[in-house]
Amino acid sequence: MRNQIDRHRADALKALEEVGNRVASQVLNGEELSLEIPVRTLANVVWDSKSKLLKLGSKKLKREFLDMGEARRFMQTVLMLSLIVRAIREGDYPTIRDLYYAGKHTLEYIDEFGKLRREETWDTQKESDSIIQDLEVLTGHLREHMGILHDTKGKIVGRIVIRSGTDTIDCSRMGDGAYSIPPNPDSLELLSVDADYILVIEKDAIFNRLNKERFWEKNRCLLITGKGQPDRSTRRMVRRLWEEHGLPVYVLTDADPYGFYIYSVYRSGSITLGYESERLATPRARFLGLTVTDIYDYKIPRNFIIKAKERDVKRAQELLNYPWFRESKEWVRQLKLFLEKQEKVEIEALSGYGFKFLTEKYLPEKLSTGAWIE
Amino acid sequence: MRNQIDRHRADALKALEEVGNRVASQVLNGEELSLEIPVRTLANVVWDSKSKLLKLGSKKLKREFLDMGEARRFMQTVLMLSLIVRAIREGDYPTIRDLYYAGKHTLEYIDEFGKLRREETWDTQKESDSIIQDLEVLTGHLREHMGILHDTKGKIVGRIVIRSGTDTIDCSRMGDGAYSIPPNPDSLELLSVDADYILVIEKDAIFNRLNKERFWEKNRCLLITGKGQPDRSTRRMVRRLWEEHGLPVYVLTDADPYGFYIYSVYRSGSITLGYESERLATPRARFLGLTVTDIYDYKIPRNFIIKAKERDVKRAQELLNYPWFRESKEWVRQLKLFLEKQEKVEIEALSGYGFKFLTEKYLPEKLSTGAWIE
Repeated sequence: MRNQIDRHRADALKALEEVGNRVASQVLNGEELSLEIPVRTLANVVWDSKSKLLKLGSKKLKREFLDMGEARRFMQTVLMLSLIVRAIREGDYPTIRDLYYAGKHTLEYIDEFGKLRREETWDTQKESDSIIQDLEVLTGHLREHMGILHDTKGKIVGRIVIRSGTDTIDCSRMGDGAYSIPPNPDSLELLSVDADYILVIEKDAIFNRLNKERFWEKNRCLLITGKGQPDRSTRRMVRRLWEEHGLPVYVLTDADPYGFYIYSVYRSGSITLGYESERLATPRARFLGLTVTDIYDYKIPRNFIIKAKERDVKRAQELLNYPWFRESKEWVRQLKLFLEKQEKVEIEALSGYGFKFLTEKYLPEKLSTGAWIE
Repeated sequence: MRNQIDRHRADALKALEEVGNRVASQVLNGEELSLEIPVRTLANVVWDSKSKLLKLGSKKLKREFLDMGEARRFMQTVLMLSLIVRAIREGDYPTIRDLYYAGKHTLEYIDEFGKLRREETWDTQKESDSIIQDLEVLTGHLREHMGILHDTKGKIVGRIVIRSGTDTIDCSRMGDGAYSIPPNPDSLELLSVDADYILVIEKDAIFNRLNKERFWEKNRCLLITGKGQPDRSTRRMVRRLWEEHGLPVYVLTDADPYGFYIYSVYRSGSITLGYESERLATPRARFLGLTVTDIYDYKIPRNFIIKAKERDVKRAQELLNYPWFRESKEWVRQLKLFLEKQEKVEIEALSGYGFKFLTEKYLPEKLSTGAWIE
């Protein structure tokens, strides 16, 4: 499997080198330097109703060195390219923040009035991260494949055996702990999966409780948490399990627009990173709960109900504009009910009915009656 | 080992039942109801210079049912006690948030003017969490021993073999991932530890990088991260490894007061939770870096240096008041230099010298020359 990691990096390296070579030959041939980069803005993100995925459209921008408005970003692109190429060649695994610092330096130049000027290669990590994204769409390789690291939040537990490097990891033998998902899940070989479905849990503490109760064992499932808004690694892991092993994916969050948005990210990706969705999103992910109607169907006591804040209302309105919500009658009903009532509830509120209510009643009932939303 | 978990819970249960029985016998004997609870406020937290630990002093408060100012908290204490006792008896593992909801209800009563009034058992989780802490100091048992769960953030990797329940976990066989530390590290049996020291890393992404480089293998150490401000589980895990296996503990953070504070929490505990320190703190933990003087000794480029914010300055001043900083000449020097220069630097800034600088130069140099701060 080391081979496959190496292959990913080797492929990414080749693609990056090709970009570099193209620029170099422009220099050698005395041509004007330019790079063609697919546009990542909202205007070029299209909702593909059939595959139920956000996809990058066909628009490309020409980033030219001799364009005053583009020269800086052109320089940044070539700089980042060289940093990543060097890291791969030297077997380094920098984080996105490492890359920011490694490339950050001050350029001095004399302007047209003879005055000495200074400019930073980039001022913030937002700038350097954005360039990494450009290189992802330009080469078609995820940064994970380039061996670029980042914070990871995901945990998994259940009957799945994974190979990472030369290690074989049995996620059903983690005791009260769990396997912390590595930055690049594509480096994992999924040796065997013995489960009927995946339960993706928003909250880490609830994941810990279900793990402690060995819910995954009793219910033949895998438990995964991304601890709130999931990182790319967790999303990629869920996607691979769905795609390669055909496991249905159920998402469990609080009954509030933030929870619904987390579901949305697992399912369709984030709009601003539409280009990732084809590899990170799980377009058939189902929302198991808590739904807005659950608040009333399960007669959640009034004093467990939290009044929605303005940002909840705003987010719900945004969600109603997302095609994957708008195309679902049930989601439209849920979101409209939320906007009408402006009330939300946390998953722990079910503990008012006893600590076993979630695992012995709510989840089995939802799963057996097919009461999820798609 | 299941036995030991059970023993922890059984011991905690016994202690909780004793408190309950004491109250019950007060009722039966027609005595005034009261509980004696060690005071947890700053006024009763003492710095023990010899053990280098924050400890709870001897002050106790009498919480009386027939005291208008205390009746509510008395009721809350007995309510929480009953919830936890029931959870242990029924084999449930609630989270602190579950307990908040399970106990939250509205009490109705007629006041002295004949008017119907309503009061919530508790309004916020802060209130119910505080009562759990009261029960911890009252019984001398950590909530982890009572089987109460919470969010966990800690990860560990390296040559350590752990038993959790019936599972044996080899943390040197986690591939690019790691073992996610469970909520109650006291339920773990540390079967074998083959390492010279523990490197505690503030940042998750840096942990991932060092893991990817197999730093722990090349340097015979264990890597642990608590992802910023560590949770109780991570702190308890570090403490156990230091106490039971005599491993030196080195902490690696950014060069800023927030990083120094994280070190302080590992070393001495947080002032507001002084009662935990005896079990959660590692009084001999050493600060490896980055120090304030590193900024200048390693000639960090000016454009990598970040201007301190007001809250950094405030925190540095606070740290100077903590006995464990004040008692250390070197820490006083570092903090005074920080207050003078008002500059900070992130660990990733070292990548300006190449991605291998941290692991192949900075860390080996610091460790071999003993250039840590205590």
